[in-house]
Amino acid sequence: MASSDPPAPQLEKQFEGFRVHLEESGSLRDRIRTVAMEIESATRLMHSSLLLVHQSRPLPEVLDKAKAQIGEIKDHYSRLAKILSECPGQYYRYHGDWRSETQTVVSLLAFMHWLEIGNLLMHDEAEEKLGLNNSEFGLDIEDYLIGVCFMSNELPRYVVNQVTAGDYDCPRKVRKFLTDLNASFRMLNLRNDFLRKKFDSLKYDLRKVEEVYYDVKIRGLTSSGDSKEDQVSQGQQ
Amino acid sequence: MASSDPPAPQLEKQFEGFRVHLEESGSLRDRIRTVAMEIESATRLMHSSLLLVHQSRPLPEVLDKAKAQIGEIKDHYSRLAKILSECPGQYYRYHGDWRSETQTVVSLLAFMHWLEIGNLLMHDEAEEKLGLNNSEFGLDIEDYLIGVCFMSNELPRYVVNQVTAGDYDCPRKVRKFLTDLNASFRMLNLRNDFLRKKFDSLKYDLRKVEEVYYDVKIRGLTSSGDSKEDQVSQGQQ
Amino acid sequence: MASSDPPAPQLEKQFEGFRVHLEESGSLRDRIRTVAMEIESATRLMHSSLLLVHQSRPLPEVLDKAKAQIGEIKDHYSRLAKILSECPGQYYRYHGDWRSETQTVVSLLAFMHWLEIGNLLMHDEAEEKLGLNNSEFGLDIEDYLIGVCFMSNELPRYVVNQVTAGDYDCPRKVRKFLTDLNASFRMLNLRNDFLRKKFDSLKYDLRKVEEVYYDVKIRGLTSSGDSKEDQVSQGQQ
Amino acid sequence: MASSDPPAPQLEKQFEGFRVHLEESGSLRDRIRTVAMEIESATRLMHSSLLLVHQSRPLPEVLDKAKAQIGEIKDHYSRLAKILSECPGQYYRYHGDWRSETQTVVSLLAFMHWLEIGNLLMHDEAEEKLGLNNSEFGLDIEDYLIGVCFMSNELPRYVVNQVTAGDYDCPRKVRKFLTDLNASFRMLNLRNDFLRKKFDSLKYDLRKVEEVYYDVKIRGLTSSGDSKEDQVSQGQQ
Repeated sequence: MASSDPPAPQLEKQFEGFRVHLEESGSLRDRIRTVAMEIESATRLMHSSLLLVHQSRPLPEVLDKAKAQIGEIKDHYSRLAKILSECPGQYYRYHGDWRSETQTVVSLLAFMHWLEIGNLLMHDEAEEKLGLNNSEFGLDIEDYLIGVCFMSNELPRYVVNQVTAGDYDCPRKVRKFLTDLNASFRMLNLRNDFLRKKFDSLKYDLRKVEEVYYDVKIRGLTSSGDSKEDQVSQGQQ
Repeated sequence: MASSDPPAPQLEKQFEGFRVHLEESGSLRDRIRTVAMEIESATRLMHSSLLLVHQSRPLPEVLDKAKAQIGEIKDHYSRLAKILSECPGQYYRYHGDWRSETQTVVSLLAFMHWLEIGNLLMHDEAEEKLGLNNSEFGLDIEDYLIGVCFMSNELPRYVVNQVTAGDYDCPRKVRKFLTDLNASFRMLNLRNDFLRKKFDSLKYDLRKVEEVYYDVKIRGLTSSGDSKEDQVSQGQQ
Repeated sequence: MASSDPPAPQLEKQFEGFRVHLEESGSLRDRIRTVAMEIESATRLMHSSLLLVHQSRPLPEVLDKAKAQIGEIKDHYSRLAKILSECPGQYYRYHGDWRSETQTVVSLLAFMHWLEIGNLLMHDEAEEKLGLNNSEFGLDIEDYLIGVCFMSNELPRYVVNQVTAGDYDCPRKVRKFLTDLNASFRMLNLRNDFLRKKFDSLKYDLRKVEEVYYDVKIRGLTSSGDSKEDQVSQGQQ
Repeated sequence: MASSDPPAPQLEKQFEGFRVHLEESGSLRDRIRTVAMEIESATRLMHSSLLLVHQSRPLPEVLDKAKAQIGEIKDHYSRLAKILSECPGQYYRYHGDWRSETQTVVSLLAFMHWLEIGNLLMHDEAEEKLGLNNSEFGLDIEDYLIGVCFMSNELPRYVVNQVTAGDYDCPRKVRKFLTDLNASFRMLNLRNDFLRKKFDSLKYDLRKVEEVYYDVKIRGLTSSGDSKEDQVSQGQQ
């Protein structure tokens, strides 16, 4: 066989198959990336609206504007789910292409939920808001947890700005929320290095909020209503 | 609500669920890693046997010894497939935990196949050897292609040692094989960075083999039989 | 001698001996790592319980819950000592495999001891708590010192939360403790880079506690009882 | 208790004990480092003498000069063993302070042994040369193995220079030696990352020596005596 011969037919046939396969998965990835970028874009708008909360704009106004994007984001996830339904069992093959965007979405939804309701947006509530609850395409638990940590990163700044605006009760409420969240995360054995690192940042956020609470307390700026609950228990030291 | 309250029950319940989920996926990963290490160990033995080919030991003896590990490796893959069958649709979630071992297995099987048959081990042949052909758990195409590139890395050394041992026809045969392989890879649009880099190393292997072929040709060490096929065809270049 | 000969018998015999030796030390290391991970896991539970002290939960309750893990941790160290007793004189060969876990254990024990007794957990007291006092397997002094520094890292946060909860005497007590500890560390010539760096963090903790003490003093929040001792002594400065 | 008080007596006493302990281990380390530097210095002289082998100086002359340092190096190890005997069970605590020097000593002794005898210096032979065979202070096996890899790094250069000087049989002998060594290392499951990396360099050395052997073979520069053993076995391909 001469070395200038074309490759053997079965070799060519196999690589032709690979070529088609790689084109298909490449084009699938392109479509996924397109939707992920649209999610990122809508999320950025939601984030911009939400940031007005640091300027003590009326909460209903801020939340209404931010919520206006949820419908669009939900539509994007529905398109993503549809694309993924074309390749069953490959959710985790392409997961890296939208996970960081999803973590940001979760962090904003959780912040909005806390501002409105005062407690943690649950995993199934997050899935429902994104329309992911009745499909093959769910919200990965680690993405949800990372999103929650991202949300906590926003809280020290929020507390500082609320105190500046005269809301002296905010540090106590946020401290309570982050303390509970901290205790909840401690139940988990975090093997995922990224998640473990994000949890470290949540602990740091809690410490910063505690320092703000301390500042308002030693200046006697808090209302007298919470003095009882914070008293050191009798006989402690 | 007092700040010394325990976390709300639904919060604790959700994180208890996460704790169980993370424990389960962590323990699944441990089991996968254990099997992957056993694959690595059996592959190392196969590699040791196969390396005797560089010392011009009789080929049947070398291949028999190397092939002796295939059964065990196949068993390990069957255990891996069984573990993965517990979590349908999550092949790609854990894929990173065995892919590098699999690429090495493929490279050795492809080298053995080439030594014995003289052409490329096909993707479905590799799957069959590893017992992956009739299960949900297949051989990822990119892993197969990377394994093929790894195999080509062994060939320049093989050619050098064969010429040393007086086999002057070997460079021509390997050159033909790598030329075809090179042409086949060129059909593909390689978006995977790692694979693209490995293909670069295949091109380098081809160049080294061409240089050995050149060495034996200019010294008139090749048999006269191949002189015709190497003539530059009219109008071809 | 032909190049296709097998390696000389004495060469093979030597490497067979090495193979056995490396397998044994590798499996010993695996067993050590398993116990170290169990220590880490029990320590994490102890840490979670202990953190409730920042929420001003009754001290006896917090300490009882945290102490509940000591027995288990002690058992793990007894298993570790038993494993190490199989290879006399090799404590420091494998020391790196459990030292970071041990430093964390010491930091928590020292914090608990300070909360309960108000002074520093001594090295021999730490050894006794971990059952390391009457064995070949002791508590490395540098690990103890690093653990003490880790403990001091918890104190600024503790002071802030105690003041918040109305315990205005806490900063004075912690400042006294860290000042003594700082003076003690200054007696040492720290050649170990990691320990030197941890001591730097202790100095930083002291500074933060001094600032909290300053805050409560200038606001007249401390009880009159400590005014005498803080007067600058004549001729002292 | 006033905050300007000296630390409590038992605290001071404990840290005074630590001070003495750290001074002692620091001064022990200084003494070890001094001897290790003397070993390094004598080894450097030995290395300089030995490098003349690349200039094809008469082997007996080269070896005699290099061997002249062995006595001194042996004395240094005897001092090191004596220092370590003051702190039983702490060999591995200070091991890092002389291990790199020891690996270099082993590599030179092994190179000299190969030049003189033509086979691998065994572990117990290395210990005997350094006077480490009848003491508590032995030659760590991983240090020996790393030293052997370092020695192999010298061989491609040696082969090139020998061929330049007209010794066309050298590549064959070195190839045989490295092939056997390579096969021996493959028996080991190398968990030590550094050692694994050094073994990779040995494989690379073998490949380079094979290429030199190839060069002399295709030019017909080897003596006819080895033509038989290198022939490809009948019926191989």
